Amino acid sequence: MIKVLVVHDACLLRQALAMLLCREHDLEVNTASWSDAVTGLVSWQPRVCVLDVDAPESAAPISQLALLAEHAAERKCGLLVLAPPSRPGLLYRVSQAQAQGYVSKGEPCEALLGAIRHVAQGEQFVDTSLGWDFLQAARVPLTERELSVLSLASQGASVAEIAGDLHLTNGTVRNYLSAITRKTGARNRVDAIRISQKAGWV
Amino acid sequence: MIKVLVVHDACLLRQALAMLLCREHDLEVNTASWSDAVTGLVSWQPRVCVLDVDAPESAAPISQLALLAEHAAERKCGLLVLAPPSRPGLLYRVSQAQAQGYVSKGEPCEALLGAIRHVAQGEQFVDTSLGWDFLQAARVPLTERELSVLSLASQGASVAEIAGDLHLTNGTVRNYLSAITRKTGARNRVDAIRISQKAGWV
Repeated sequence: MIKVLVVHDACLLRQALAMLLCREHDLEVNTASWSDAVTGLVSWQPRVCVLDVDAPESAAPISQLALLAEHAAERKCGLLVLAPPSRPGLLYRVSQAQAQGYVSKGEPCEALLGAIRHVAQGEQFVDTSLGWDFLQAARVPLTERELSVLSLASQGASVAEIAGDLHLTNGTVRNYLSAITRKTGARNRVDAIRISQKAGWV
Repeated sequence: MIKVLVVHDACLLRQALAMLLCREHDLEVNTASWSDAVTGLVSWQPRVCVLDVDAPESAAPISQLALLAEHAAERKCGLLVLAPPSRPGLLYRVSQAQAQGYVSKGEPCEALLGAIRHVAQGEQFVDTSLGWDFLQAARVPLTERELSVLSLASQGASVAEIAGDLHLTNGTVRNYLSAITRKTGARNRVDAIRISQKAGWV
């Protein structure tokens, strides 16, 4: 039996995903919200964690993913990410946590079942439909510094606040914001934030 | 038998929701993406449509909801919205389409099943956990005009572009943007957009 922990913040959707998986005779399924995920992993010792990383407030899952990945690595539990299609930036940020598997939410159930069995064997798995997104994710359009500036700007920080936080001058922050606007093909700063959020970079 | 059409853009999640529902002996379940929803409604004639309105690109479902609601009203099909918690603005915009039922995605499956049976009887249904969100939605903090300005601004339009689109002067647009920033308790324009997006107003 493969023990699978489904992590999703919406109760209804994690129950629905669990129902989909527990019809399979080789899977034993349990669920958790993101705030219970580490506890669930440590106490139940699943072989695979299926993670929905695309909550409306996607900041929470991503910041908790690194912690979860640490506990998972110690316990030989594989992480399998349910990825939304066409969000290469989110994929890039998630892949930093070294998950073993990636399945698009746009694929049918069979793709997820196949991926769970691969990850349970200790193999890596990337859904073919995410190939293009991974290619775009690999071509990160922005530098680490630009991503830091963009992240603060997207939270509503002013130029002076960003400069203070990152120990830069106002002029340097403005230069970074111009570079971000140019590289994302945006019309202005607000448009750059919109484009970056849509792709999942912030 | 109650015919239920589940509308969700992610194939995996609509299959999972369908699986959850089709265990019930009085439900007959079919699924559709948002782009197939009207076709599904017209050809299959369901009694209830269960709609996930919180896609990452939430603009698409909301703009299609009005069209779907028109077809549903003609065919005596009830619309049941799966609402994300704590997004009163999204609830406000969705409720303009006059859906009959609202269930929070944070509730367990039983809440959805109960709501489906209420809506199938032609009754209105609002999940108690959404009461506070509906109260906040009713206290719309922004005027219709401010919402129009905010919507364009959040798409990256400049003051001049917004002025052109809405036949206003640049000064008037700046006044609206200041009012929006003040009313949302934001630090600046970018912060006002962030706060409004989080609540689902745009």
